[in-house]
Amino acid sequence: MTTANPWIDDRSVALFTDLYELTMAQAYYAEGMDAPATFSLFVRKLPARRNYLLACGLDDVLHYLEHLRFDADSLDHLASLGQFDDGFLDWLSRLRFTGDVWAVPEGTPVFPDEPILEVTAPIAEAQIAETFIMNQVHLQTTLASKASRVVTAAAGRTVVDFGPRRMHGTDAAVKAARAFHIAGVGATSNVFASKVYGVAATGTMAHSYVEAWDEEVDAFRSFAKRYRQTVLLVDTYDTLRGVDRVCALAEEMGDAFDVRAIRLDSGDLAELAQESRRRLDACGLHDVSIFASSSLDEDAIAGLVEAGAPIDGFGVGTRMGVSQDAPSLDIAYKLVAYAGKGRLKTSTGKPVLPGRKQVFRNEEAGTASGDMVARADEDQPGRPLMQPVMRDGRRTEAGRDTLDAARDRAADELRRLPAAIRGLASAEQPYPVQVSRALEDYRDAVIRERAG
Amino acid sequence: MTTANPWIDDRSVALFTDLYELTMAQAYYAEGMDAPATFSLFVRKLPARRNYLLACGLDDVLHYLEHLRFDADSLDHLASLGQFDDGFLDWLSRLRFTGDVWAVPEGTPVFPDEPILEVTAPIAEAQIAETFIMNQVHLQTTLASKASRVVTAAAGRTVVDFGPRRMHGTDAAVKAARAFHIAGVGATSNVFASKVYGVAATGTMAHSYVEAWDEEVDAFRSFAKRYRQTVLLVDTYDTLRGVDRVCALAEEMGDAFDVRAIRLDSGDLAELAQESRRRLDACGLHDVSIFASSSLDEDAIAGLVEAGAPIDGFGVGTRMGVSQDAPSLDIAYKLVAYAGKGRLKTSTGKPVLPGRKQVFRNEEAGTASGDMVARADEDQPGRPLMQPVMRDGRRTEAGRDTLDAARDRAADELRRLPAAIRGLASAEQPYPVQVSRALEDYRDAVIRERAG
Repeated sequence: MTTANPWIDDRSVALFTDLYELTMAQAYYAEGMDAPATFSLFVRKLPARRNYLLACGLDDVLHYLEHLRFDADSLDHLASLGQFDDGFLDWLSRLRFTGDVWAVPEGTPVFPDEPILEVTAPIAEAQIAETFIMNQVHLQTTLASKASRVVTAAAGRTVVDFGPRRMHGTDAAVKAARAFHIAGVGATSNVFASKVYGVAATGTMAHSYVEAWDEEVDAFRSFAKRYRQTVLLVDTYDTLRGVDRVCALAEEMGDAFDVRAIRLDSGDLAELAQESRRRLDACGLHDVSIFASSSLDEDAIAGLVEAGAPIDGFGVGTRMGVSQDAPSLDIAYKLVAYAGKGRLKTSTGKPVLPGRKQVFRNEEAGTASGDMVARADEDQPGRPLMQPVMRDGRRTEAGRDTLDAARDRAADELRRLPAAIRGLASAEQPYPVQVSRALEDYRDAVIRERAG
Repeated sequence: MTTANPWIDDRSVALFTDLYELTMAQAYYAEGMDAPATFSLFVRKLPARRNYLLACGLDDVLHYLEHLRFDADSLDHLASLGQFDDGFLDWLSRLRFTGDVWAVPEGTPVFPDEPILEVTAPIAEAQIAETFIMNQVHLQTTLASKASRVVTAAAGRTVVDFGPRRMHGTDAAVKAARAFHIAGVGATSNVFASKVYGVAATGTMAHSYVEAWDEEVDAFRSFAKRYRQTVLLVDTYDTLRGVDRVCALAEEMGDAFDVRAIRLDSGDLAELAQESRRRLDACGLHDVSIFASSSLDEDAIAGLVEAGAPIDGFGVGTRMGVSQDAPSLDIAYKLVAYAGKGRLKTSTGKPVLPGRKQVFRNEEAGTASGDMVARADEDQPGRPLMQPVMRDGRRTEAGRDTLDAARDRAADELRRLPAAIRGLASAEQPYPVQVSRALEDYRDAVIRERAG
């Protein structure tokens, strides 16, 4: 197959857009429609069993907006499509993002109808950016929200990301590692992500390594003598016999034995962990911990924790990596203002909240008691969540968050949610989100005007 | 945030691997374990309601294997992890993939336990490649298989990919466009994918464009006068009033009116399509077709087709783009041979099929009647599906398939499946896949040896 370079990077990412963003941009340009527009990104509805989402993906959005350029290659391709004229392509070659972005910081729990970010810019700029902005915030918010549940279920035990092999492509697996870090996951198996984000890389051994040796114990010895604090995978042939071989190896190696854990990857994990623990303790390996993997998700982990299984850490792969039970969010990026007027779709469903907005979070005795979505210029009780993260196309100080700050924020904000909202089960009452009187009145006025 | 370049490309993709692949590779290297190994990639179980999968992703695997190199940046990062010694890093700097790959061509329907591809190479080479190979074949096979169902449901009507905004990251959205093309999807909204793969890019207009104008008809006129064969989105305010405005615009523009279709994006699509069709016909716009979108998947489309809704094409986004009902496959890449001996895990479940294999597809009167999985050197009745696509690290002629050949193959092979297997509902009887007597005997012998 003779395909061109399929990799997106900073030079080519401008073409990561739906074609209609560019045909609309050309029409805006040709019509002289260059007034400021505000687009609001929000989730309309939580997936089943989710009580909150963890906002994530902002940093990649800001990086994209700072670097947005159509290079010669991209312009040549657009010219080849036969729909774009020279005037527009010339304008596109000079396009830079010049707008403002307000957003809730990464790691903040958010709820339906609350803006996650709002872009205000000349309309064509904000329109072209739609596809990438949605793609990244959707992916990272989906995965951070799922991982947050897994971390909650593990109740303090380590969670490690084993997902790269079955996540949806390379970009998902790389961005997942940052989303998971923000959500409190302890480490990743993804070497590239450890380079990019400085998050801890970790790993054990695969069945293939054990199988390549004629004797299981030879595979164990080879790893144990080579790596400090290594983890031995014991379930290739007979799990408990594998544990016995770890005991035998410890006796053989004496002080040189420096194994951190065994890994169980199949079978009844609770039962095998109990019996493995018993055998490890019996041979004096009290410090060798038990690490489990195998189709884990928050429910399986909660079950193991509740059963008192002596498992010290979990390797979680596919089900967290694709957010198996809720692989997508009903996320939208909607025009809410243009040329000083509120805008919205009125045909069906609940109309969006027009204009620029702020979200105020209220607390009682250290626990979040409810949010108020208001117009941007309102002063309401509570802590304002939306921050100015980009002005005139440049990041502000608030737009230079660190990954660890986002992780700390997520842990802190989650602690302050009501227990039922933090929990794995569907909360009987959703977290209270109100719309301010002024914003409701404004919405009604915009609907009346649009219907007129 | 001060993150390094988060984009994977040909230079950095070698680091897209799980850490344990590299610690195992170092151990193989240090132990002098460089005999040929065969790893087999296959799916253990079909997701609910899938009767077949469409194999997809091979071209990206071959491209990766041809270009696999650890560059200086990657080696520096590995050195910084403190687990790799200079001898191994030096070996890694010279690593090239020198092995062979056999695979079923892209677009071939495959079934559980059938190898999709088999890699035979010095064990460390085949081990390091595991993560990327699985990631790409998993993603593209998942998406091609889902899209194939959507195309089946559309029963000859056009299907367009609207998914990039909610697919999992940029790589997924780009590779999806090729997987969808192979599965028979007609076009994509993804501009970058149209550049890389030469697939048709298409698009309509968004609600934001209509909302940015004070009057809906002005938005329609602006697009209609600018673009030939355009599509007007009629459901921003009141769908049927929107259709009436299209009629009025046609009368106003006369011969200059060159609108291909209207798009419905909300509400009861069957009812709205009926009434829209009636109004378009009544105003003489018989040639203006009706295009529908809005949370579509194969079931929704099958329902609309069955109801006789006069819809000529479907824009399908998120549910196809993340394979909503089955976002992951139980795919595995397992060591099946090393140093001339069959290898497998015996602890639990159905053991894998050891050694290199071939799959023979049998037909009766032009319809596939069953497959036989056999040892690679067996001669069995039927058409052999596994082809040699790479030898000594270089693509063979069979490894230079084109995207359109894969698309034609998929259409042809699907036509030859039994109707119940091609259908959307779970087939009462799964497609018959047998294991040859010689392969069963070999598996039993390997199990006996491993258990000894």
